[in-house]
Amino acid sequence: MNQPQENDIVIIGCGAGGATAAQFAKKTNRKAQVTIFESSSFPQYSKCGIPYAISGEIPKIMDLIEFSEEWFQKARIDLHLNTTVTEIDAEKKIITAEQNDNSIIKKQYSSLILATGANPVLPPIKGLCGQDAESLKKNMFTVRTIPDAKKISNAISSAKNAVVVGAGLIGLEMADTLSKKGLNVTIVEALPSILTNILDEDMSKEVLKKIQESVTIYLNTFATEVKTDQNNDLISVIIDNKNKDEQKEIPADVLIIAAGIKPEIDLAEHIGCSIGDTGGIQVDDTSLTSVKDVYAVGDCTEYVDFVTQKPVPIGLGSIAVRQGIAAGMNAVGGKYRLPKGVLQTATSEFFGLEIGTVGPSKQIRKDTESVSAKYSGLSRPEYFPGGKPITMKAIVEVESGKIIGAQAVGDNAAQRVNTYAAAILSEQTIDTFKKMETAYAPPIAPTLDVVTLVADVASMKWHRKK
Amino acid sequence: MNQPQENDIVIIGCGAGGATAAQFAKKTNRKAQVTIFESSSFPQYSKCGIPYAISGEIPKIMDLIEFSEEWFQKARIDLHLNTTVTEIDAEKKIITAEQNDNSIIKKQYSSLILATGANPVLPPIKGLCGQDAESLKKNMFTVRTIPDAKKISNAISSAKNAVVVGAGLIGLEMADTLSKKGLNVTIVEALPSILTNILDEDMSKEVLKKIQESVTIYLNTFATEVKTDQNNDLISVIIDNKNKDEQKEIPADVLIIAAGIKPEIDLAEHIGCSIGDTGGIQVDDTSLTSVKDVYAVGDCTEYVDFVTQKPVPIGLGSIAVRQGIAAGMNAVGGKYRLPKGVLQTATSEFFGLEIGTVGPSKQIRKDTESVSAKYSGLSRPEYFPGGKPITMKAIVEVESGKIIGAQAVGDNAAQRVNTYAAAILSEQTIDTFKKMETAYAPPIAPTLDVVTLVADVASMKWHRKK
Repeated sequence: MNQPQENDIVIIGCGAGGATAAQFAKKTNRKAQVTIFESSSFPQYSKCGIPYAISGEIPKIMDLIEFSEEWFQKARIDLHLNTTVTEIDAEKKIITAEQNDNSIIKKQYSSLILATGANPVLPPIKGLCGQDAESLKKNMFTVRTIPDAKKISNAISSAKNAVVVGAGLIGLEMADTLSKKGLNVTIVEALPSILTNILDEDMSKEVLKKIQESVTIYLNTFATEVKTDQNNDLISVIIDNKNKDEQKEIPADVLIIAAGIKPEIDLAEHIGCSIGDTGGIQVDDTSLTSVKDVYAVGDCTEYVDFVTQKPVPIGLGSIAVRQGIAAGMNAVGGKYRLPKGVLQTATSEFFGLEIGTVGPSKQIRKDTESVSAKYSGLSRPEYFPGGKPITMKAIVEVESGKIIGAQAVGDNAAQRVNTYAAAILSEQTIDTFKKMETAYAPPIAPTLDVVTLVADVASMKWHRKK
Repeated sequence: MNQPQENDIVIIGCGAGGATAAQFAKKTNRKAQVTIFESSSFPQYSKCGIPYAISGEIPKIMDLIEFSEEWFQKARIDLHLNTTVTEIDAEKKIITAEQNDNSIIKKQYSSLILATGANPVLPPIKGLCGQDAESLKKNMFTVRTIPDAKKISNAISSAKNAVVVGAGLIGLEMADTLSKKGLNVTIVEALPSILTNILDEDMSKEVLKKIQESVTIYLNTFATEVKTDQNNDLISVIIDNKNKDEQKEIPADVLIIAAGIKPEIDLAEHIGCSIGDTGGIQVDDTSLTSVKDVYAVGDCTEYVDFVTQKPVPIGLGSIAVRQGIAAGMNAVGGKYRLPKGVLQTATSEFFGLEIGTVGPSKQIRKDTESVSAKYSGLSRPEYFPGGKPITMKAIVEVESGKIIGAQAVGDNAAQRVNTYAAAILSEQTIDTFKKMETAYAPPIAPTLDVVTLVADVASMKWHRKK
């Protein structure tokens, strides 16, 4: 066993959060000993890139690897792949890990960073899993890992019909990918609208309309059963509209499960880390857990929403990276504080439509009295052909007049919501924001961009209501 | 003569500022009488669109007209085209205007809005002007009006060689247009760098490199003389490098003058409006001048810079429109205050490169001790092909750590500087901004966008210097 040192950092998990923490620990203190234990055989790769590696927009699946083993070597970060941490002794500050050959490593730490990630949620679909309740049967997949990407790529090369369960970001990204690959795609979503964590229903309807041009989508509907033939090949998926009590059988040779994720917290629970109501490890603005010298980052955590100060699950790579910066720096004695909550700025693109969001979803902000406005315009002045449509929504807290959220569908949705992210982070009021000068040039944006035009309407509505 | 009324608004000039003021006066108070006097024969049109109407990206020159005479009629705004206001009696609140047929209109007002715009600066080039010192000779043009656009369009249809004087926004937009139209273009700029009001030299160098792939550009150089043949056709332009005392003769059959603008303030001066050091009419945050009930908007004004609180000339349509909103509303009794200064957020696109800027130019912020950082990255994560280059610069005030400016060259430069505009408007510090969550998705933006990566570097430099 290694001797303990002052800056002996152990990180469990080499995803975006863990790998970033390692980098920033090393950047902050070159003498820090940084060790990562990763149970898979891959160093840090982009989970969010998987749909695009399957579509071929990213040429090879292994391109998803952002930092190679060699990179970690050069950075003098000790990376153990195929090594699963099985036990943490938080008092003695020792972890026990098991390698693929069953050999055991014990390692002392001064600070521990949990970056254990999350696992896909498997909905209760009859016939979905094999004997092992966590392994899916043939041609049924989740979308989380490089092995998932490889298996899906193989399966779809000869497939015709796909069913995607879940109309969140990953479900829609996969539906787009499969549709581009020539499959008939059916999306099954249990809720009455799509992208519930990302867009309000009035905004997501615009996306729904566009998606329906390319794929079939059932809302308020569960997948209840999968049917397979004597070779265990998938034949169809039985779906059930919960409002109409109407069942349908959808032919399918591929099933994609994209029904959300569940934080991996087993180790954290064992050492007594406080787990929040959302099921994630509670962390503060330094990314510290309730256990001394134990940090946690990324999808295994929950943190508070910036606006409502209510806990929200963390499921975005962008937040994992930022928590990784904080944990990595603080674990070696830095003093890096994150903002007082997450903005959950997010974007994606599918079926030719870019979407963007910032601020608490409807579910999270429901106790905050708010007004909102929507505005549709073009990316260029009307006289200039080629302007692309953009619809934005701005959400304002009634009590304070502060901007608490924005959503966008269309041209440059991501960069447009970033502008709102900057405003929310400053707790800017809608009356200040609406007067902001946006950059104008005929080929690029009108004198008044939708960014502020929607703020104008929101301000008017707020003045009427306040 | 009409009888005076309480809300009898007279607006001089139907450009972006004047027309916006008219709209907002009417929107705010439907009973307001709004009269516009415009000396040209055109209702409101986009001056900024002229280069694109010449290039053909905007199909017809008359498409530049954003609001037609019919529109003003329907809006019950009394628009007098071809009508020049010759006199203002600010005590009796009466204007005198002369129509094309020499008939005289006298009109009383309760509030007057000056939107008289600006005129192109004509540099001292020998042979440039005819007998009338303000009219250019054959095949020599400024780029300001619809007649200019028509004349340039005609001239370039048979031209081969163009010289553009001035490497500001309009000069470069015109150089791009002429280059697209197949002309050999030479740009002559008196200063040692291009886009001096928009970008710092380190940023404008990136643009310069790109431009030089398509056109010839001479810096530190004046056009001193034009040579014409016996038909008064332009043959060449003599240029003079002021550092090297080196003269050259550039063959030219078209000359474009884009050497800046000079506010049109004759009427304002006559009624005693305070004129600032930059040569524009001084206005406050309600767009009011120093004369009672007289507002001014747009290119004829100066206002203070948001950061430095020093006066700056107004030359952007985006600001004219915002001042127009303020003046229009306030002229009929509204209480609309503009921010405490202008951000001068601006963008353009030429030679395939988008640029963006916000905050005071080097000249304006020179007395503010600042640190800055530059960062170049891609619009997508490295593993995703097709990422477009983007370089950003962030500028921070040393004393306060506040962001005071940002500049961008490349992908979505405009929307990226808008994010900084929101931050500057909130007087956000670089340390807050750098932690902002930007929207991330592999096809759209990396987990850490250049928007915040450059802020990280700027923050580090600031901490070292403060």
